[in-house]
Formats: sequence, structure tokens, C-alpha cells
Amino acid sequence: MLVQHSPEGPRTPGTATRGETVPTVPPPASTAAAAVDVTALLERGRTLATPVLRAAVDRLAPPMDTVAAYHFGWIDAAGNPAAGDGGKAVRPALAVLSAEVTGAAPEAGVPGAVAVELVHNFSLLHDDLMDGDEQRRHRDTVWKVHGPAQAILVGDALFALGNEVLLELGTVEAGRATRRLTTATRALIDGQAQDISYEHRDRVSVEECLEMEGNKTGALLACASSIGAVLGGADDRTADALERYGYHLGLAFQAVDDLLGIWGDPESTGKQTWSDLRQRKKSLPVVAALAAGGPASERLGEILAADAKSSDFAAFSEEEFAARAALIEAAGGREWTADEARRQHAVAIEALHAVDMPDRVRDAFTALADFVVVRKR
Amino acid sequence: MLVQHSPEGPRTPGTATRGETVPTVPPPASTAAAAVDVTALLERGRTLATPVLRAAVDRLAPPMDTVAAYHFGWIDAAGNPAAGDGGKAVRPALAVLSAEVTGAAPEAGVPGAVAVELVHNFSLLHDDLMDGDEQRRHRDTVWKVHGPAQAILVGDALFALGNEVLLELGTVEAGRATRRLTTATRALIDGQAQDISYEHRDRVSVEECLEMEGNKTGALLACASSIGAVLGGADDRTADALERYGYHLGLAFQAVDDLLGIWGDPESTGKQTWSDLRQRKKSLPVVAALAAGGPASERLGEILAADAKSSDFAAFSEEEFAARAALIEAAGGREWTADEARRQHAVAIEALHAVDMPDRVRDAFTALADFVVVRKR
Repeated sequence: MLVQHSPEGPRTPGTATRGETVPTVPPPASTAAAAVDVTALLERGRTLATPVLRAAVDRLAPPMDTVAAYHFGWIDAAGNPAAGDGGKAVRPALAVLSAEVTGAAPEAGVPGAVAVELVHNFSLLHDDLMDGDEQRRHRDTVWKVHGPAQAILVGDALFALGNEVLLELGTVEAGRATRRLTTATRALIDGQAQDISYEHRDRVSVEECLEMEGNKTGALLACASSIGAVLGGADDRTADALERYGYHLGLAFQAVDDLLGIWGDPESTGKQTWSDLRQRKKSLPVVAALAAGGPASERLGEILAADAKSSDFAAFSEEEFAARAALIEAAGGREWTADEARRQHAVAIEALHAVDMPDRVRDAFTALADFVVVRKR
Repeated sequence: MLVQHSPEGPRTPGTATRGETVPTVPPPASTAAAAVDVTALLERGRTLATPVLRAAVDRLAPPMDTVAAYHFGWIDAAGNPAAGDGGKAVRPALAVLSAEVTGAAPEAGVPGAVAVELVHNFSLLHDDLMDGDEQRRHRDTVWKVHGPAQAILVGDALFALGNEVLLELGTVEAGRATRRLTTATRALIDGQAQDISYEHRDRVSVEECLEMEGNKTGALLACASSIGAVLGGADDRTADALERYGYHLGLAFQAVDDLLGIWGDPESTGKQTWSDLRQRKKSLPVVAALAAGGPASERLGEILAADAKSSDFAAFSEEEFAARAALIEAAGGREWTADEARRQHAVAIEALHAVDMPDRVRDAFTALADFVVVRKR
């Protein structure tokens, strides 16, 4: 278990300003990190990885290549080329950056970046089907457009392809990288199993929520943050430290995601207002608020228990969701989650200290961690 | 493409005896092979692999461990221990035998046997869901008992676990074995994609059917037949030759399966009479009969085209299926498929000649090939 603290409910009562859409964020971890051009770092990862990713997907037999291209946003449902929102591309940026830890060129991390993206997208395809989610990045999900069988099949194919792009390098390092990717994939699957089982439960503890988020988000970011270094020949101690950075970065990322899922500005996130509340997600602010005790926490518990049985839930007004969000905040769930993002961010930065690397690379890792906790989408 | 011949429809008209339930089989490939105790060989593979397979499955987080145990037949739907029909266990027998090619102990092939079984069962879990199959080995399939989400999730977990049991060996050989397993897995997925797309088509050529069966059955038997040798340190030339043996053995296996799917004795196969015809499967005898030309072939084409549109199909009588089987046979589809099993069996045996191995091991490979084409279930 990599989580470095044992949460005992909110440490401070809810004091964050209502209506504020951005979580409280830490100051930049260093002035050097503040000077890093994060947009350029993200762009570099995307530019290096995308052509190789597309070439890998092109290897799939029809119609799987088309279904995958739709999923990645390269074509629309009718098969016409599309610009596509490739997402934030934090994972490829981390993978190519991690290659530089060993003194290798960023290009050495590209097969790792591509493998991680393939495994990430395998999990999205399967999770969307299991969860019955009809939309992803403002588009119909694959199972909605191409049917459940294609979502299963193409997910499987991306998973296999992820291993293939690494193993075909044929090096000892590629074998080690694949082993770490497999460990991350198993964690990803464990996290989804937990997520499914929690849906059917009234209460989920803060520890359970953090473990699930560590599996679903932390494990693959851990792999992304180390895989380039592994391919570049880093020893296990270095790779483990980079994984620790990525794991806690993932938990910080997820805490911010959970804040945005409730209080995010729809203009920035592209999601509905109170998005996670509409989906009755037991996300970190909710779970922390329920664990906090006190009048607001108890009232929230009663309301959410009633909501779980309510058949009118789908017709709830903006005001009803806003009232729930206010209760979560009053119980301290918002503040605790913002604190949690800061704590995880600090642990991630701390993990970098164990690794010898060029200052430029360390600053870039630090800047990416800062970016993750200040982002608005 | 490993298929060594280009079928041009049936070579001889249908002359097999009607009502016969066993396909025409070749004589044993050698007297030494005839003396091999195949039952003991299969039992050895099962005995060596099963405890390691169970230990691997036990690593899965709940409830995935339980769902997987149900799938393997180790427990029933209520969670009580069950004897379970583990199947014929040809794959584990081949994997441990292949280790002996290199002079290693059969035990050296066990992680390979387990990895192949895990990947095989991943594909069964997903295929049953994609195909909507409600029964496997006389039991409700996982998606029927535990729901579609668990079938997807546990399938994914078995896939990942298959890679894990190999990669955790941490050797160069394990990396090579995982690469070959990944190639086989990709073929498996390609085969399922073809199978799904053929369902929606009126006509499938003999070549397309063989390619699909090579992907769905040949590729993983190829991997099973070589993976122990790879783990034992065999060079690529040796591994490739053993893969060729396993690939053609897989095609022979599938040809016999396709015969049993129509003319098999329900007492032996445990399936309904005319099982594949009831499922409108475009199996090898059907496809060969349609490709043959002549009056029976044409009449069969008309009848199957009408069946495809018929809403009464589910209520067809024994006699109606028997009439279709008779037409397939009259058009030469049965004879061609039995010939095909013999041809593939011969190519498999031939592939063994390229490999230097102890006579005892060669006889065992030969005996397993003989077994595959004479089996009645």
C-alpha cells in the first residue's frame, strides 16, 4: 500500500468559499518549476507519441482499426476524419520525460508512452460499457455507436497491442517495462472491480475510496512516470521512486478531478454542473463529508440515502444538487479533498528527491505535478 | 500465413457413410506413437498445471476470484466446491511436453501452460458474452450467472494474469515467451473479429473459414506447443517449428470439432444433435459444401439462405436438421473436412521433423496429434 497517510475524516471544518470553481492549490513547488513551459511539455509528449500510436492502431484488422480510430477521436461515427480532443496527454508527457532521467533522449520513452496510452484506452472502452456510460469527451461511447461486442473486442485488442509495442523491442528493458505495465493493468482492473462493488453499497470509507482511486488512476500514472526510465536502463530503485511520484500524482490528480466533478465550471470541464452528484458517485468529497460526523454530515447521509431510493432523482433541479453540494462543503468534504490534493502533491514531489536526475528534468516533473493540481478541466 | 495449401472446394464428392458419428481418421503416424499412453500425458499436464493455475486465480481480488473459480468449474453458482469438467487439457499437456524438447524437466513448461490456459479462458469469457452463448460445458456461462460486467472484468483479469505469471519469472526467456503469447492473443482476437463479421454475411469462403479457425484455434495451440521449449531456452528456429506443429494441429482439431458439431454423438460430445446447424454456424463442412458446386450444393445454398430469414428456425424438427446435414454430406462437405483434418495432421507431424528432440518426446507429440483427430468429443 503506497498511500502515505491514514485519513481520519476531515481535519478542518469546511471553510472554502462557496461558488468558487477552482480548488485551493499549493504555490508552485519551486520557482524553477514555475518557469517551465508545461504546454510545451504536454505538446512534446503528444507530438512524439501520436504518430506511433496511430501506426500501432493501424495494425488492427478491420473493423477493429476503425472502431479504435473512432474511440481515439481520429474519425467520426460516419468514418470521416475528425480533429478529436486527445485529452490532456499527461501520460505521454511523463513517459517521454522519464526517459531523460537516465540521460536517454525523450524518444526512448515513446514505446512506453504508446503502451500506456493503449492500456489506458483499453480500460476506458471496457469501463464505459460496464458502467453504461453513453458519453465520453462529448461524444457517444464506442458501445453506443458500434455495439457492446466491438467495445469488448477492441478493448482486448488495445490491451494486447500495448504489450506488443513494448515486447517487440526485444530487449531486457522492454521485458521489465512490460512487467511493470502488467502490474499497473492488474491494479486498474482491481480498481474497476472495487468501483463496481462500491456502487451497490450505502457507505464507502475514505480509505476504500483512496485505494480504489490509487488503483484506477495512480497505478497507470505511476507506470507512465517510470516506463521511459525503465526503457532507458534505469535500475529498479530509480523506477520505484518514479512510480511513487506518479502514484501520488495520480491521487492528487483524482482528488482535483473529484472537486471538478462537483464544483467545476461547466465552461471549462465540458461536463454538466454537479456532474458527479448527478451520477451519485461516491467520490472523495462525498465520502469525506460522510465520514466527518456533525450535523451537516448526518443530514447529508440522510439525504443521500433517500436519493438512492428515489425514482424522481433524474428530474432533480439545479437547486437540489446545489443544496447537496453545499452540505458536502459544510461537512468539510470540499476542504478535506483540496487538502488531500495538496498532501498527495507534496508526497509526489518528495519522491523525486530519491532520484538523481538533471535539474531540467526534475523541474519538468515538478511543473507537471503543479499543473495537475491547478488545472480547471 | 501458415496454411500450407490452398483449398479449391472439395476434392472428392461426398462418399462418407451416412449416420457414422466418427470422422474418417488417419492410421497412427507411427507404431511408437501408438504405444504412447495419451491419457497419462494429458493427466500429467493437468496435474502439473492445475495447482499453479489455482494459485494464480486465487491472487485475484474478490469477487473476481470467485467468478473465475466458477468459470473454471471449481465451484458452483452457489459457491460450493465442484468437481468440474476441466476439458481435455490438450494445451497444458503440450506446454509441459515442449519443455522436454530442450532437455528441461516438464516442470519448466508449467508457467507457460498456466499462461496459455489463462489466455484461453479470457477468450472464452469474452467470446461467450459477445456471442450471447448461455451454456459452456453443460453449465451457465459467467455472464448469465454473474452478469456482463463481471464477464468483461474477470476476462481482462485472466488476460493480465497470463502475462504476469510469465513475466514474474524475470528471465529473458520469459520475455520471449510473453511476446509469442501476445502474438497468439492478437490472433485470437482477430479470429473472433472475423467470426463476428462472418455471422452477418451470406457467404464465407473456405479460405476465410480456415483463416478464422487458424486464428481462433491454431494460434494458441501453436503457442502451447512451443512455450515450454521457449522457457527452456530453445532458439527461435526450434520454437517456430513447434509453433507450426501446433498451428496445424489446431486446424486439424478444429476440422474434427466442426465434424463433431454436426455429426457427433450427443452421448459423447454432451452437445445437442446437429449442434452447429442449430446455431447456423458457418463451419468448415458447411462452407466446403457451399463452395463445391453441383445440385446438392446449390440446393443447400437455397435452403440456408431461406433459413437465415426464417422466424420458425428455432422450432425446426430433428428431421429438418438431418435433411440439411445430409445435403452437406451429399455436396461433399463432410468428406472434404475429414480430408482436411488428415491433411493438417500430416503437416503438423511433418513440422516435427525440423526439430531435434528425444524420440520419446517426438512420439508423445505424434500421439497427441493422433489423439486430436480420433477423439469423439
